[in-house]
Amino acid sequence: MSLLTVGTVAFDDIETPSGRAEKVVGGACTYISLAASYFVKPVRVVSVVGDDFPHETLEYLRHRGVDLEGLQIKEGEKSFFWAGRYHKSLNTRDTLDTQLNVLATFDPVLPESYKQSEYLMLGNLTPMVQMQVLEQLTHRPKLVALDTMNFWMDIAMDDLRKVLEKIDVLTINDEEARQLSGEHSLVHAARAIHKMGPKYLIIKKGEHGALLFHRGQIFYAPALPLAEVTDPTGAGDTFAGGFMGYIAKTGDISFENMKRAVVFGSAMASFCVEKFGIERLKGLTPAMIENRVEEFAELVKF
Amino acid sequence: MSLLTVGTVAFDDIETPSGRAEKVVGGACTYISLAASYFVKPVRVVSVVGDDFPHETLEYLRHRGVDLEGLQIKEGEKSFFWAGRYHKSLNTRDTLDTQLNVLATFDPVLPESYKQSEYLMLGNLTPMVQMQVLEQLTHRPKLVALDTMNFWMDIAMDDLRKVLEKIDVLTINDEEARQLSGEHSLVHAARAIHKMGPKYLIIKKGEHGALLFHRGQIFYAPALPLAEVTDPTGAGDTFAGGFMGYIAKTGDISFENMKRAVVFGSAMASFCVEKFGIERLKGLTPAMIENRVEEFAELVKF
Repeated sequence: MSLLTVGTVAFDDIETPSGRAEKVVGGACTYISLAASYFVKPVRVVSVVGDDFPHETLEYLRHRGVDLEGLQIKEGEKSFFWAGRYHKSLNTRDTLDTQLNVLATFDPVLPESYKQSEYLMLGNLTPMVQMQVLEQLTHRPKLVALDTMNFWMDIAMDDLRKVLEKIDVLTINDEEARQLSGEHSLVHAARAIHKMGPKYLIIKKGEHGALLFHRGQIFYAPALPLAEVTDPTGAGDTFAGGFMGYIAKTGDISFENMKRAVVFGSAMASFCVEKFGIERLKGLTPAMIENRVEEFAELVKF
Repeated sequence: MSLLTVGTVAFDDIETPSGRAEKVVGGACTYISLAASYFVKPVRVVSVVGDDFPHETLEYLRHRGVDLEGLQIKEGEKSFFWAGRYHKSLNTRDTLDTQLNVLATFDPVLPESYKQSEYLMLGNLTPMVQMQVLEQLTHRPKLVALDTMNFWMDIAMDDLRKVLEKIDVLTINDEEARQLSGEHSLVHAARAIHKMGPKYLIIKKGEHGALLFHRGQIFYAPALPLAEVTDPTGAGDTFAGGFMGYIAKTGDISFENMKRAVVFGSAMASFCVEKFGIERLKGLTPAMIENRVEEFAELVKF
């Protein structure tokens, strides 16, 4: 099974109530591919970095089975950079700085070997770029998931609506679901969003868990109550990577299996937030992931 | 089995995004006793109303097996009155008016027949009054639960801390748990609150469900995603009534049974919010409640 993903590979400056970290490796595609690599190989990456991006990180990703043929490295240019400060609740944050750098002129080009990928995770990025990736595929993947955010709803809603028509699974947070649908009730929001294209909707609620909607059916995966959340950055991308990685590994896109995928995604996200950046996602083992999933099962058992 | 409860029996003016309702019957003790009446008889009430309180409501409660011997009816006086307006999210509200009326001089007096009650639910009220009820019991109940709110933490923290030392189960919302403990992480908050007395802590998170903490163990009951929430008033009290009613019915205070009680409480609360005031809590059947509990089980099954 093969999973293709597109998104940013970047640097972040992060400030949380636990501390701060500068120029840590981040980006949606980094989190997605790393999380997915625990489930499936190859994970194929379409993205762009400058020549400032650390070789060790690229080597580590390759070592984990991530295919970087589609990663463009622009000589003499700088990688995408984001700086943000989380509020005390960790549910909200302020963007302090955004430097597009190589992303400003990013033209996603799929290597030939990528064009028949069986699963596709369109990470949070300009909807137009997400569409360009979809259009280069010669075969329609078995499942296409897309992550997006309020920013694109504000400035590129028409493009977003066009790409939504072509995907299967949308992952957004509760406020974004309300913004996209114009409905306050998440049940009504899900109905409205299904009509836009995605047959499956995953609403990520951070510390309150995640909801999976499909044709009137609902699944609720709680979040694990954690003693310490060091850094929420990348948790949603890590969720998406775990979710799609599990789907690609099992090759089963039934609603029942998608529930399990949501729990695996939640488990991966629960690791992610324990340290800054991608640190906690390095060196996990299948047993550690299974144990975490078991904690989720125990949490809701009655 | 017998369940004793204390709290307000009152009138509410309520404004929500769905509409408004004036002078509807409300009050913590009303919701608690009505919800608990679906599980156990007798439910004994200690409270006070004026002579303006509708006889039909009292008759209805009696018909449901609620013992009103401990309900004081003050001739020529008015019942407690609260008016509030919910914000769009329904998670927050503004108090528009509070008229203490009979509550200003409330002296809770337990009838002799109440003094050996096996279970006690101290509904949200002045901590001093909650303490007075506890002190009149001649036998320590098998389980004592207490509900409170940020208002008492602001103006009567010393009294609250004293009564917390004497109870088993505390039910509060997430912001109140943070305020009471001074801890942002709910896992740390639970640890701190256990040290104040309650061996069990239930954190109510409204549309995000409820968490039960006990000595490092955690149970997560999600909330049912509802298409329409008409009025959240009384949902927390209804939860408490269903929770304690189920415990009293089963006579089992193990952690495992308490999990089931949390789900039954959540199921009762999910009915409560569907209509204004106590309307939706009238005329439920055991089958309707069982079906709702089954929906909770389905929601988290994977």
